[in-house]
Formats: sequence, C-alpha cells, structure tokens
Amino acid sequence: MELKAIQDYYPDDVAHCYGCGKLNEHGHRIKTFWNGDETITRFTPKDYHTAIPGYVYGGLIASLIDCHGTGTAALASYRSEERKPGSLPPLRFVTASLQVDYLKPTPLGIELELKGKVLELNRKKVVTEITVSANGVITARGKVIAAKMPENIIKKR
Amino acid sequence: MELKAIQDYYPDDVAHCYGCGKLNEHGHRIKTFWNGDETITRFTPKDYHTAIPGYVYGGLIASLIDCHGTGTAALASYRSEERKPGSLPPLRFVTASLQVDYLKPTPLGIELELKGKVLELNRKKVVTEITVSANGVITARGKVIAAKMPENIIKKR
Repeated sequence: MELKAIQDYYPDDVAHCYGCGKLNEHGHRIKTFWNGDETITRFTPKDYHTAIPGYVYGGLIASLIDCHGTGTAALASYRSEERKPGSLPPLRFVTASLQVDYLKPTPLGIELELKGKVLELNRKKVVTEITVSANGVITARGKVIAAKMPENIIKKR
Repeated sequence: MELKAIQDYYPDDVAHCYGCGKLNEHGHRIKTFWNGDETITRFTPKDYHTAIPGYVYGGLIASLIDCHGTGTAALASYRSEERKPGSLPPLRFVTASLQVDYLKPTPLGIELELKGKVLELNRKKVVTEITVSANGVITARGKVIAAKMPENIIKKR
C-alpha cells in the first residue's frame, strides 16, 4: 500500500479542510488510500461524537463519507490520467452533492472503516459510492458527486 | 417566537447529539424554532470549520442540515398531533437519509441561517427540506428523511 494518502499530496493552499486537511489541527485529518480497486480509510470517532448514547452522530458519518469521497475522486483521477498523486497540475475536488443512507445505528467506541469505489469519472466530475462499516457490518452508504476544483483556485506549490 | 427550542425539550436520555444535544458540551448545540410555517436556526461556524480557506466545510453544512431536519420533524409532529413540544410521549427523530446539494461556496466568518419546511409527514417519518443561507443567499439545500425513534429507546424523564 502507498505510504502517503492522497490528502498528504493536497497542495498546501487547499489543505485546511476540517475533515481531511493535513494543515487543520482541529480537524479529523482522514487519510484516503488505494486498496486494490477500492479506496479505504479508517477513523475512530471521539466519545463525544454521539447521536444517542452508544452510537455515532450522523453528521460525522456524513463528513467522513464526504471527505473520503473527494479523496477517492482525486486518487481515481490521477490514476485515470496515469499520473502519480501530487504531480502537477494538482487534481483536487470539492463536493457538489452528498447522499447518505443510514442503514443501521453505528456503534461508538470502535474504529470505523470506509471503502470507496468509483461509479463514474470524467474530466469535470467523479461520482463515488462510499460504505461505512463497524465490526465488518455496513451501517451507512453514501454517494458523493465531486467536482474538479478550478485550477485558478489552487496556487502552485 | 417560542423561547425554547425543540432540542430543549428532548428527553435527557436522548439529548447528547453532537449536532444539537443540550447535554453535549463539545457539540454544536443548534436550536430549532418555528418561524411561522417554517423552522429556523442560526449558527456561526468556527474559524477552523474550513473547506478551503474562506469557506465553510461541507461536512459541517451536512451536520447542520441533519439536525435542523430532525428538529423540524419533531416540531412538525407535535404540531400535527396538536400537542405541546415536550408533552408525553416524547417525539424524537433520527435520520434515515440525508441529501445535500452544495449550490455555491458558503463563506466562513458569518452567521448562517437555516430554514426548514415539511414536505411529507406521517406517523413513522417526516421529510423536510432545509436551506442554508449566508448573507441572504442560499448556498446549500438539503432533504432529510427523519424516522420516528421507537418509544422503547426513549426513557421517560
């Protein structure tokens, strides 16, 4: 497995996302990797990320899906262009639309695993499906439509 | 306007939500009120709730829509039963499905206003539409399908 996550390659000027930016010291700093043809990230919620006691807050689940979705979009775009992550020009995505179905309560206190796969990819957008699992059971499923960030927003490193 | 928000009436055993629970000292503690036939809440993101610098993180926007949606569902259910919020048995909702469309970047550093309206209501679920506005401009639009929490989960106060 690649040792650096896609978020480690995000240009510094767009690396402050609360969900996944390496430069946001308050945030979740999730890390999205390839794992074969899927992407993967793991995250252990804090004890205060509560929905009702014992279960994970749905807003956090939406956030993880969101950032793993945009990370997956970036990884998949580099791969489709046969380029290494981090090569220029940078490929960075923002969320256009997010859909989350909460299938069952997600238990709090354990590490969650998110997997991502690409449903659709073109030069402007990437659609991904993301699952959230706890103890091997899928508890939520999301779809993220990620739009490519215009290059003039991303300053070169 | 009613002085207490619907979240102030949530039974203590289910008042720990990171987004809106009055008993979650780490959380956002959003407050949902009626404003005529719509519901309203306001929230000012922290400076670290960043997507890219200057703009609000989409995961936070999803979280606010989520909790304002379940709050709106509870308010609307009490109203449809011609009962006062807080009267027993308690009406409390969880999110079954969340859809967010990010229409334009949401500027960081100002108070956001969320409005909710009911699209559908029955004894088991309530569907709401939520808008997020910054400086009077709608920047995101969400749909929340909220499911009524089974009574056996909510202990009586």
